[in-house]
Amino acid sequence: MPGPDPAVAATRLAVREHVADLADGSLVLVACSGGADSLALAAALAFEAPRAGLRAGAVVVDHGLQEGSDLVAEMAAETCRELGLDPVEVTRADVHTTGAGLEADARTARYAAIEAVAARLHAEVVLVGHTRDDQAEQVLLGLSRGSGARSLSGMPARRGRIVRPLLALPRATTRAACEAYGIEPWDDPHNSDESFRRVRARRVLAVLEGELGPGFGAALARSADLLREDADYLERLAHEARAELPDAEGLPGVDLDALAALPRAIRTRVWRILAAEAGAPLADVSAAHVESLDALLTSWHGQGPLHVPGGIAVARDRGAIRFRPLASGVE
Amino acid sequence: MPGPDPAVAATRLAVREHVADLADGSLVLVACSGGADSLALAAALAFEAPRAGLRAGAVVVDHGLQEGSDLVAEMAAETCRELGLDPVEVTRADVHTTGAGLEADARTARYAAIEAVAARLHAEVVLVGHTRDDQAEQVLLGLSRGSGARSLSGMPARRGRIVRPLLALPRATTRAACEAYGIEPWDDPHNSDESFRRVRARRVLAVLEGELGPGFGAALARSADLLREDADYLERLAHEARAELPDAEGLPGVDLDALAALPRAIRTRVWRILAAEAGAPLADVSAAHVESLDALLTSWHGQGPLHVPGGIAVARDRGAIRFRPLASGVE
Repeated sequence: MPGPDPAVAATRLAVREHVADLADGSLVLVACSGGADSLALAAALAFEAPRAGLRAGAVVVDHGLQEGSDLVAEMAAETCRELGLDPVEVTRADVHTTGAGLEADARTARYAAIEAVAARLHAEVVLVGHTRDDQAEQVLLGLSRGSGARSLSGMPARRGRIVRPLLALPRATTRAACEAYGIEPWDDPHNSDESFRRVRARRVLAVLEGELGPGFGAALARSADLLREDADYLERLAHEARAELPDAEGLPGVDLDALAALPRAIRTRVWRILAAEAGAPLADVSAAHVESLDALLTSWHGQGPLHVPGGIAVARDRGAIRFRPLASGVE
Repeated sequence: MPGPDPAVAATRLAVREHVADLADGSLVLVACSGGADSLALAAALAFEAPRAGLRAGAVVVDHGLQEGSDLVAEMAAETCRELGLDPVEVTRADVHTTGAGLEADARTARYAAIEAVAARLHAEVVLVGHTRDDQAEQVLLGLSRGSGARSLSGMPARRGRIVRPLLALPRATTRAACEAYGIEPWDDPHNSDESFRRVRARRVLAVLEGELGPGFGAALARSADLLREDADYLERLAHEARAELPDAEGLPGVDLDALAALPRAIRTRVWRILAAEAGAPLADVSAAHVESLDALLTSWHGQGPLHVPGGIAVARDRGAIRFRPLASGVE
């Protein structure tokens, strides 16, 4: 008796490993867009869940950004139902324009919609279909920011309720799995819209693999794993260092010498923690901001207060470093 | 009175900053290939050295790998002499084939030849002409290895006697500086030889800048700086952790539980230190080797001794991890 298609087997194994620890009877959702990655994931979950004593459902997000997106969502939901998933919910994402760009705004809205459905249905986890190619593209985009280990560490296999079972598999595997199942995936026209950075990253990755070797994407994903471990550990040490940082004697703010004594790899991260405590949105605090903050210690020549995002002034005042809202003025 | 050309000014400033700490009368050499980068560097050094109370000379390496390389070297030396550098030495690099590839073998031979001349002339430092583009290419090649922060941390601005003043400047600046000086740089035909990974990395970088933004190369170089700080610090912590790692009680080898208790970001580096102590050539120990070593702790199922490069067997034996030469057999 022949086994299942290798691509089908690979996606099933990946799902099995990622739901192994869940309690009997738990509800697992798959976030399904109707694309090849999430359909292959939905099919694998439909197969594995009953064998693992789990219930399996799906959530389909309609972003409402394209003509006919409601129909695409309904078709994806129908495929999920045919696969035996239950419940299957279609939910609408409300995309708010924040200035972070359409891709980022749509992602924020998508995860919020998924979390809302998961909470309402008491789902234990939600599987999403990101592959190793998505991870490699994510690292490339992080590289273009040039802001260190955290921005190069890609997506974790699990954060909160969100689980990514396919992160170690190439996108070609999900396509092959859909073909083996006879499922027709939907091709998001946004995936060929050159105005999206993600699409350009995808094309660049193909060039990189052609020039530097077919393993380049896998190497990027492996780098992401290693750098995520580094970033996690260094951030933990930075939080400990922050907690031990004394206030300046007789002045508001943290003690200058204690901050300056920290090793650079820790200090750059402590600057970010201090900025966040003062109310700065961390996503907007760049490596260049941190660099200019650190210059208050390393190349002090009497420079005035610096501004960091969130309307915060940072000043060196005798033996102290002080973060304050700009509105309160600068003495 | 107009100042010097901006590209000339930028290279001079970079050199000035990198020789500022040297003692009066010290000899500074520039390693000159005759290409635009090292000629611009040579010209900047010739200008700055007398103003900084330093002596300036040059070393030109003839790799003997191409027809007429001796003439190219002699022409580069002649240009250095015309710039006022003294002494100017041409030296022959003996390239030994090691299996690491021609590029790597030539680099090893080049630095050995440079160090030999520097030692003989009692040079304080040797300036080499790597630019921000070289750094970005280095990071790209590191990415294709997928082995973490150290392999992505590029070239340091200083290591031992070797100093790289131009690491923050784009290659376009050295070309522009040569043009302003009226110096004709030599174009190494190896720089367009597609069989070299470095050449492919250069072409890929151009594609990346076109697709993801003209700042991509600079972002790669900035990432390298940040990751180098991380790698330096984590390696320091790993060496401390290694020093405190107890031997196993009543067994040869290090204590299993103590090793397993280290955080992953440290433990992966301690594995490399242990492998190096046992005689493994570190350049050959990949992330995959470390991964399989770590599985002796994290997914133990009675697997036999593992082999790491350098003919070393690593075995888990009750409460110990033991590194031994393969030749001594496996009990």
